[in-house]
Parts: sequence; C-alpha cells; structure tokens
Amino acid sequence: MPSPTRSVTLVLGGARSGKSRHAEGLIEAHPAPWLYVATAQAYDDEMRARIAEHRARRGEGWQTVDAPVDLAGAIASAPAGMPILVDCLTLWLTNLLLAEADIPAARAALAAACRQAKGQLVLVSNEVGLGIVPDNALARRFRDEAGRLHQELAADANHVVFMVAGLPMIVK
Amino acid sequence: MPSPTRSVTLVLGGARSGKSRHAEGLIEAHPAPWLYVATAQAYDDEMRARIAEHRARRGEGWQTVDAPVDLAGAIASAPAGMPILVDCLTLWLTNLLLAEADIPAARAALAAACRQAKGQLVLVSNEVGLGIVPDNALARRFRDEAGRLHQELAADANHVVFMVAGLPMIVK
Amino acid sequence: MPSPTRSVTLVLGGARSGKSRHAEGLIEAHPAPWLYVATAQAYDDEMRARIAEHRARRGEGWQTVDAPVDLAGAIASAPAGMPILVDCLTLWLTNLLLAEADIPAARAALAAACRQAKGQLVLVSNEVGLGIVPDNALARRFRDEAGRLHQELAADANHVVFMVAGLPMIVK
Repeated sequence: MPSPTRSVTLVLGGARSGKSRHAEGLIEAHPAPWLYVATAQAYDDEMRARIAEHRARRGEGWQTVDAPVDLAGAIASAPAGMPILVDCLTLWLTNLLLAEADIPAARAALAAACRQAKGQLVLVSNEVGLGIVPDNALARRFRDEAGRLHQELAADANHVVFMVAGLPMIVK
Repeated sequence: MPSPTRSVTLVLGGARSGKSRHAEGLIEAHPAPWLYVATAQAYDDEMRARIAEHRARRGEGWQTVDAPVDLAGAIASAPAGMPILVDCLTLWLTNLLLAEADIPAARAALAAACRQAKGQLVLVSNEVGLGIVPDNALARRFRDEAGRLHQELAADANHVVFMVAGLPMIVK
Repeated sequence: MPSPTRSVTLVLGGARSGKSRHAEGLIEAHPAPWLYVATAQAYDDEMRARIAEHRARRGEGWQTVDAPVDLAGAIASAPAGMPILVDCLTLWLTNLLLAEADIPAARAALAAACRQAKGQLVLVSNEVGLGIVPDNALARRFRDEAGRLHQELAADANHVVFMVAGLPMIVK
C-alpha cells in the first residue's frame, strides 16, 4: 500500500466564520475513519452547547480523542495515515495559559508533531488579533501567543486559509 | 425590455474600511434610480452624525426607504429591477436583538428575499468576529448571529468581497 | 546615477501577524543603508519590551530616527533614495490622539509626504476594526481614524498587503 501524502492545512478565521465545517470537509474528502482531536474543556453551559453542536454535526466515520493539553502527543500517537482534524488551537492555547504551561516549549512540540505527521492534518484556529488592543493583560498575552503560534505553524504548513463568511480565502 | 440580471453581492469589512462607498459604486454602475434601504435607527448623536455623513455622500438618483426590522419586506416590495443597496446588516441585526425578535426566522426570510430579488442587490455588513472574545454575553451573541447571517447569505450570493483599507479583496 | 524608483507599500495586519518582519524583508531587498522611522514612545514596560525585541531583530545597515509625531517631516527629510520603513502608523496615530493634534491635517501631510517620497517607502499599521464595537469612546474614535488613515494611504500606495499568520495576502 502506498503511504498517504503528508499535508498540513491551517484553517484560520473569526468567530462563526465556518472554520470547523470547512475543516471537516477537507478531512472527509479522504477515506474514513477520521480522527477528531478535541481540545475543548467545558467550563460552562455556553461551551457545553458549542461542543454538543459540533459533535452533532459530525457523522459516522469520526473517532474522537480529547487533548486539552498534550496536543503534540495526540497527533504523534494517531494511527499512521489516518486523517486528523484538530479543533481548535485557540482552546488548546487557552488551556495552556490557564495551566501556566511553558508556551514556547508546547508550541515547538506541536510544530515538530506537525512536521512528522504521516497523513492529512488539518488545524483549526481563531484569528483574534484584528480588533482594538484589549484592556486586559491576559487577553493581550493570549492574542500575542496566538499570533506567534499561527506564524510558526503557517511557516511549515502546506496550505493556510482565512475563512470569511464560510468561504476560504487562500493565504498559502 | 430585457429583464435585468439578478446579482447579489455581500460587502463585508471592518469599521471605516470603505464598505458603504464601495457598495454605492457597485450600484451606481447601473442606471438610476437606485434604492437605498437604510436599517439605521439613530439612538444617539454619534449615530446621527454617521447617518448624516452617509446621506450627504449619496447624490441624486437615490431613493431611501427605512427598514430597521422588516428588511425582507423592503427588498420584496422594491420596484422590479431597481438596484438595491442595503446598508447595513449589522444595524439590522442589532435592531432585531434589541427587539428580541426571532433571529433564525428573520435570517431565513432575508435569505429568501435575496434569492427572489429581481435585479442588482448589494448588502453591506461589518465583520466583527476577528477580535478577542468579548466579556459581554450580548456582544458574544451578536457576533455569533452576525457570523451565521454572513455564512447563510454568502452561500447564495453571486459575489462576496472583504474590504481592507478601502480596497475589495475577492472572496467569491 | 539613475534615480531610484518610488514605491509605497502599506503593510496591514493584526497583532503578531508578522507585519514588521515582512516589512523589514521588503526594505532589505534593496541595498543598505536603510532608514527605520520609529513612532513608538515607551509608556510602560510592555512597550519597552516590544521596542527592544524589534530593535534586536534588525541587524546592521539600519539607521533609526524617532518620529513619534512629525512623521511627514521625518519622511521628507530622509536622504534621497534611502529605503524607509515606518513602524508603525498605529502608534503614531495614538500619539496624535493623546496630544489632541489635528488628525485630518496630520493625515493629509503624511499622504503628501508619501506621494513625494523618492525611493522605497514601507508603512506598517495594525488593522483594528474587525472586532466588536468597543465600549470606550476613545477606542471607537481611534479605530475610525485608523480606518480613514488606511483608506487614504492605500488609495495612493503602489502595494497594499494584509498579513495573516506571517504571510502576505495581496490587496493591491
């Protein structure tokens, strides 16, 4: 059997811009089964509702693993060649910040896992840096770290898209 | 007389990105008279100043109807073939939220009116989902609803543009 | 000696989108020496850290002038043909607002200086208008003025790019 081609796609966009749906479509263009790597931790009802909505939309063929913190490990231990959707980096980064984790080390580990992925890998993340500078220092740190993360992953990615109103604009 | 071609354009962009000006140019490329569907309700002086500035820029050839809530009705009852500019969906959605209207029903009615438009229809809306998650629950709900609205309208639109510094980037 | 070609590039993007690095690359494609026009005023430690990080990244070949307010003057008095990087317009506009300066006059003077530039001129600025409308009146005024400034400069610029995750999307 030929080994599948490695391809990493970074799907960026704002709130409700259709990132998850687009990313799922990219993965489902390949044969099932597909691996859904979930980073969400349900802290409140609003988050629980979002997680339920996303799960309900995914149909058969999806396997789910939770990776709120060790995202690099989840990618590295996926079955070789199984298409992987990571949804989303924003929540993963939030988890790291709340856990006071070593962000540069986690970012480097994730970048390495992406470079070593064996098949299709699609990463979803929110673009959060295009508004007014937040008053809140943690929010400012978050958007700085999100920007650094996106730059590092985009540099190595095969494809980068920026979602607007459910439609992908090709960045790379 | 040949019936005019139906064409729906969604003009998205940030604050002061030149959305209205670009949209007016798209409409004015067709023969007058043109219909301006205004959704603004002046709650304060800042809003009154913006409305006055927009009106002053539009010259002869424009007819104005106010549609702060029943936007689908205003589009449906426009004279057949008259080019229509809706400015803007953001304020319309704000009016609906403040009135505690049924947003999914209003969104579906607007999408249907767009599909049944008989000539040129240009819809202006603010992209508001690219900053940090707002603290305020109403603001979070607003940007979620705006995102859903944009996705639904963009799926059916003939053209979607994302304005940056007064210049249109082609999304669709 | 042939006079160098005038070319003005506006580099827009969100926080940590790689604007400065991209702009430096555009300038460094031309022969040194290069002029760095710094608009930053260090009000606090966070800002001092950012300035230090940017300075450390620039290597030999760069000369720096500070122009927190008189940006048009700094551009006009640069040695003829020396490539100029202005980083960034966002901080310059902040300085003007804090000084209660005449913004339309300053914007017109800057636009004129750009039209009269003799060589390569690259201007970096933050896109800040794509989030929820800020509660704060000064923040709303700031994003309106930033939008007006970007539109005016983009109209005359030879190139406009919108940075996403360190990658330039071509706007013009």
